[in-house]
Amino acid sequence: MKNNLMFAQSGGPTSVINASAQGVFDAGLASKIIGKVYAGIHGIKGIINNNIIDISQEDPRQIQLLKTTPSSALGSVRYKLKDFTVDETDYIKIFENFDKLAIKYFLYNGGNDSMDTITKISKYARKIGYDLISIGVPKTIDNDLAVTDHCPGYGSAAKYIITSCMELSLDASVYDKGKVVIVEAMGRNAGWLPAASKVATYYGHGPDLIYLPERKFDINKFLADIDNLYTKNKYAFAVVSEGLKDSDGKLLGTMGSAVDSFNHAQLGGVAPMLANCVNNQLKHPVRPIEFSLLQRCASHIASKFDVDEAYNIGKEAVKLALNGINEKMVISVRNSDNTFSLSYTELTNIANVEKIVDNKYINDMGNNINDNFIDYCLPLINGESHPPFVNGIPQFTKLNKKNIYK
Amino acid sequence: MKNNLMFAQSGGPTSVINASAQGVFDAGLASKIIGKVYAGIHGIKGIINNNIIDISQEDPRQIQLLKTTPSSALGSVRYKLKDFTVDETDYIKIFENFDKLAIKYFLYNGGNDSMDTITKISKYARKIGYDLISIGVPKTIDNDLAVTDHCPGYGSAAKYIITSCMELSLDASVYDKGKVVIVEAMGRNAGWLPAASKVATYYGHGPDLIYLPERKFDINKFLADIDNLYTKNKYAFAVVSEGLKDSDGKLLGTMGSAVDSFNHAQLGGVAPMLANCVNNQLKHPVRPIEFSLLQRCASHIASKFDVDEAYNIGKEAVKLALNGINEKMVISVRNSDNTFSLSYTELTNIANVEKIVDNKYINDMGNNINDNFIDYCLPLINGESHPPFVNGIPQFTKLNKKNIYK
Repeated sequence: MKNNLMFAQSGGPTSVINASAQGVFDAGLASKIIGKVYAGIHGIKGIINNNIIDISQEDPRQIQLLKTTPSSALGSVRYKLKDFTVDETDYIKIFENFDKLAIKYFLYNGGNDSMDTITKISKYARKIGYDLISIGVPKTIDNDLAVTDHCPGYGSAAKYIITSCMELSLDASVYDKGKVVIVEAMGRNAGWLPAASKVATYYGHGPDLIYLPERKFDINKFLADIDNLYTKNKYAFAVVSEGLKDSDGKLLGTMGSAVDSFNHAQLGGVAPMLANCVNNQLKHPVRPIEFSLLQRCASHIASKFDVDEAYNIGKEAVKLALNGINEKMVISVRNSDNTFSLSYTELTNIANVEKIVDNKYINDMGNNINDNFIDYCLPLINGESHPPFVNGIPQFTKLNKKNIYK
Repeated sequence: MKNNLMFAQSGGPTSVINASAQGVFDAGLASKIIGKVYAGIHGIKGIINNNIIDISQEDPRQIQLLKTTPSSALGSVRYKLKDFTVDETDYIKIFENFDKLAIKYFLYNGGNDSMDTITKISKYARKIGYDLISIGVPKTIDNDLAVTDHCPGYGSAAKYIITSCMELSLDASVYDKGKVVIVEAMGRNAGWLPAASKVATYYGHGPDLIYLPERKFDINKFLADIDNLYTKNKYAFAVVSEGLKDSDGKLLGTMGSAVDSFNHAQLGGVAPMLANCVNNQLKHPVRPIEFSLLQRCASHIASKFDVDEAYNIGKEAVKLALNGINEKMVISVRNSDNTFSLSYTELTNIANVEKIVDNKYINDMGNNINDNFIDYCLPLINGESHPPFVNGIPQFTKLNKKNIYK
């Protein structure tokens, strides 16, 4: 009888994706129903290409370090499964492995693209009559998954952005000769990350202006906003999204021309581009700053709420699977007192859907965030988590990742 | 009889410059010899332009928050005093204020430019027969002051760079499709900050290549280094200095054309420039990341050693002044067991001198740092310091800064 579990990580890494992995492993290894706990290396590609590890072979101390280790300890992937009615090749390899390893439970950690992957695998399982239980474990710093109140990874990225904006605001205003600061945060189509910087402003040290991808970006209005502030204060601080688009819908920033296999361009470069405009047209001193990858891997200033929830969501996914719940993703539901309960929703509610920032949080001018966003964001950044330090050095997990087939 | 103290902050801010201010204020306010403790706003310019505050008028709780507040809470300045044999205007204003406020002790916090400022003021005091005791309080993330083993501010910036490089190394290697990462750290002519990233490598998660301004930069050798690594590992991680110069001595990166009043160009843009070369010539996927201002204000991951030492150096400066020591800067001396003692040196040993990275720390190829640098760096990043957090939000000082003349 098949009773083993397969887990893998997919999509852009976060500060807490490994906390969810630890939750899955802790619950999986503790279960008397589940036999072996396996993991694919580099997501679904590892399962296709026979790159699979047995978690019981890892040092338990290294598993316990996962909770505070950023990035995807199992390696990640951006790989879109073809429709199996067009090409079954990948599916045949996946289910050969599932069958050989007696996999009953398939847990996959990722964003909306990854939920598409699980949905396809579930459908294929039904087609071939393979008894598989699939559960989605959510993650994304972009916070753009539907149904759930928020996504694991967002709180920690938001906390990094808020803390760094407060520190930058203190630093950049230190001279009396004046400065424009333009900071760029991630979020392709959903501006939850730049929106978080509003919390810094609310607490006295943050940006004056915030531009989200939810609004069309008008460079002339932007320059006027900056110029007004600078003329008044000899200082202006703007946070912009990497995904800003002009009135023709064209992205302002695309770093090189690289696209991933979901056809997403590698973004970035909006802040330097806008800084050039400020420099050339307004002649004000200006400093562009990109949070770049730093915002999604800063485990040294992670949200304790986020880390703990990500861990609990991993455990919850195992619990759901053992209860026979199938083709669902774990979600977080906000209670009226701003605490949260875990629940679940259909994968099809999540796959390929993007939740953008609610209109109520964006000001009428489209150049700032309303104060009612603070209540939404604050519980998500509560508490501080960091890796253990030894002699001043953060300690991160080192897994052996010995391939079971080698 | 004159018995008051004047303090001010100058030059680029750091994560711990306010810790030194707190050390000066705590010792100054506790002293029975010193009357009033004053501070100039925006450095020497505040003393010239009558923008001066009385520290006893500030909330003591806000003074206690200085230790963990980044940037210069009193405002900073980059202002070069003219030679007084050429133009006495500024000196006349400074000493009018000193005389009116009965200043006997002048403590000035900054780097080599600031020590030049104190030296000039001291000389002028002697010329006009004003009984002034001047002490320099060192700071600079660049770590480029002569005589002293290291500079307050360096340890915290180094700790940020080491931690962030470790996190970036985990993040950037997460996909199997390959990546080149080029990270830029500060340091105009002295590469102590990029050198710090070696500690990340030593502990398993750091750059493969490190390029300092101490060596002429050859872009073709750089591209060959990157290409070799990428071909072998599908991954390459380089840390570069903002101050890299080509064989003609021309800076690779100058952001815009802005220069400060010491005629230093605002640097930055080396990593994006090199990333373009990797993209265009090697065709490898590449991500440039600039630590920019983040590296000098990340008080949330400061070195506890650095914060404590900066505070003690502020106190020590007051102690020296009270002992009649004049025209000296406080220094840190390394003992044989890697502990440190405070001492002092002539201001003239420091003013306008830059201590670059010792040859023994740079490898023969000029593209990496030797392991013997680890022993130098480790004690400086020991322990973790961060601001107090309330409901997930860091708490920074807010001084009233009420001008005594208004």
